[in-house]
Amino acid sequence: MAVYTHLNAGDIDAILSQYDVGTLLSAKGIAEGVSNSNWLIETTDGEGGGQNRYILTVYEDRTNSDDLPFFLDLLDHLSAKGCPVPRTIHDRSGAAFRLVQGKPMALIEYLPGVSIEDPQPGQAHAVGRALASIHAASADFGQQRTNDLGLAGWRKLFAACDTDQLAKIDGALPGLIAEGLDRIEAGWPAHLPRAVVHSDLFPDNVLMLGEDVTGLIDFYFACTDIAAYDIAVTHAAWSFGKGGATFNRDIGDAILAGYEAVRVLTDNEKAAMPILCQAASMRFMATRCYDWLHTPDDALVTRKDPMDFANRLKFYTETGCDAFPFGGS
Amino acid sequence: MAVYTHLNAGDIDAILSQYDVGTLLSAKGIAEGVSNSNWLIETTDGEGGGQNRYILTVYEDRTNSDDLPFFLDLLDHLSAKGCPVPRTIHDRSGAAFRLVQGKPMALIEYLPGVSIEDPQPGQAHAVGRALASIHAASADFGQQRTNDLGLAGWRKLFAACDTDQLAKIDGALPGLIAEGLDRIEAGWPAHLPRAVVHSDLFPDNVLMLGEDVTGLIDFYFACTDIAAYDIAVTHAAWSFGKGGATFNRDIGDAILAGYEAVRVLTDNEKAAMPILCQAASMRFMATRCYDWLHTPDDALVTRKDPMDFANRLKFYTETGCDAFPFGGS
Repeated sequence: MAVYTHLNAGDIDAILSQYDVGTLLSAKGIAEGVSNSNWLIETTDGEGGGQNRYILTVYEDRTNSDDLPFFLDLLDHLSAKGCPVPRTIHDRSGAAFRLVQGKPMALIEYLPGVSIEDPQPGQAHAVGRALASIHAASADFGQQRTNDLGLAGWRKLFAACDTDQLAKIDGALPGLIAEGLDRIEAGWPAHLPRAVVHSDLFPDNVLMLGEDVTGLIDFYFACTDIAAYDIAVTHAAWSFGKGGATFNRDIGDAILAGYEAVRVLTDNEKAAMPILCQAASMRFMATRCYDWLHTPDDALVTRKDPMDFANRLKFYTETGCDAFPFGGS
Repeated sequence: MAVYTHLNAGDIDAILSQYDVGTLLSAKGIAEGVSNSNWLIETTDGEGGGQNRYILTVYEDRTNSDDLPFFLDLLDHLSAKGCPVPRTIHDRSGAAFRLVQGKPMALIEYLPGVSIEDPQPGQAHAVGRALASIHAASADFGQQRTNDLGLAGWRKLFAACDTDQLAKIDGALPGLIAEGLDRIEAGWPAHLPRAVVHSDLFPDNVLMLGEDVTGLIDFYFACTDIAAYDIAVTHAAWSFGKGGATFNRDIGDAILAGYEAVRVLTDNEKAAMPILCQAASMRFMATRCYDWLHTPDDALVTRKDPMDFANRLKFYTETGCDAFPFGGS
């Protein structure tokens, strides 16, 4: 949560002059996202006198600019199909992103709504529906992107972590990782339906007003992968209390019910849910373990505890199909 | 530039329910101010359907809550008199501030506009006018607040700085401080007009649209002091290039001309301007030296170079009255 790049009012004026978005009224650096710098921009349209708002994002080192066309075109594709995602604003030459201070930047539609940390089942249901809507709408999106954070990616991240250091976080962690990776690899489901997946749909990436999803945001991990894996990530992200210790069944079931209100899961997808949820847990263990051991103690960012997702991995491993509404089926 | 306090959507909903401001539409943590946490809040009015914006500020340790009634009542007083400052929004019980997570918080009117780092003379003229307008409007503000950062305050801050450490910043610094403090104390003007002064009117505390000042903000150093000292702070803050090395005479003259368009300075005030500008430079040297030597190298905040204002001190000492349009008068 920081602004890494400095843009003054003159810089922002110069950027906006390349877009057909009116005149700058206000620009506030916002504490959103961990890898990019973001401003909430307000402009006035010269003619109608109306006000418009945009998010201006400068992509810092962690976002590979080669992937930006995929991410930004995806927003346009999904919003054109009525999904609750922000449009990319194109500049006068039609470009989806530009360079500022040598870094790529984009202007994105602002959407109202707030992130819900402690959802009600009706809200989780709406999140499931919204997730299914992007999977369905992505069917005719012409572009592909490999998931860098699949099983091979996790193995690479864990290999860069010293086992003794991992054991210092928690004595059980090295065993959970080694056994989990082998179990997930052995049980990985073949031939499940694929889609463009968000793959990071935590509450802070969903804007809501009441029980309506007004925006799915931060598609910078989006890629082409098993659709049900995205449900698993969302299930793992939303259905647990602090620290991943307690499972909230009502929330998990509501996400699945909401999803199935748009697209009914196949029996193979349902059967794969326990292993996909273990995989989703392992994915966040991998990045959190890596960041935990590679982030200096005095760094700017708050390290996230890998055990939050180790607890989820244990839960999904122990409960199997019982964690899901289609339990014994 | 940070958000220190965590408020989720539920927390903000609960806060807003104590105010007559409609329903939460959006809340973004904004990177503004160094000592407080700020959110840009958007709400909808139930009846008219209009949208309103507010700044929600949580005051962290550095703001003494005993002083909050002074700061917040001052905003109400000045805005009621037509000065470009944000109103304080009072809660349903009439309170100007409340407590959240044990810390004081206030809801402040949002004002459009952007901060201008590289002003044109017409903009500096407008800033001078706005400054004079708050001095004039403060005449019948019933409350007083002592300036903690007057000469005694600077001596205290410098006394907490090790002289050898100061010399490591720049060899000339200890001498500049010792001689400057004595010269300012000896030359301190008596009986000049007093007012409520902003005392920190840097470009980032002024919102502008074109040549109009739309908001003077961040009154958390406001106090009762010599009105011309506030002009001196503003002159020192706006009229120099990066590092304080080059004086921009057009900007300095425009600030004074703008001020005098509202309130003509007395001969005594004009004559005191060189010593008051040296004092303003010393005030920022004092806090910057203290922060430079007391902020860990790895801390979150960017330390500001005390030499930026040591350069201004040297300039104002050497040029005397020649730096001002009423030069030899």
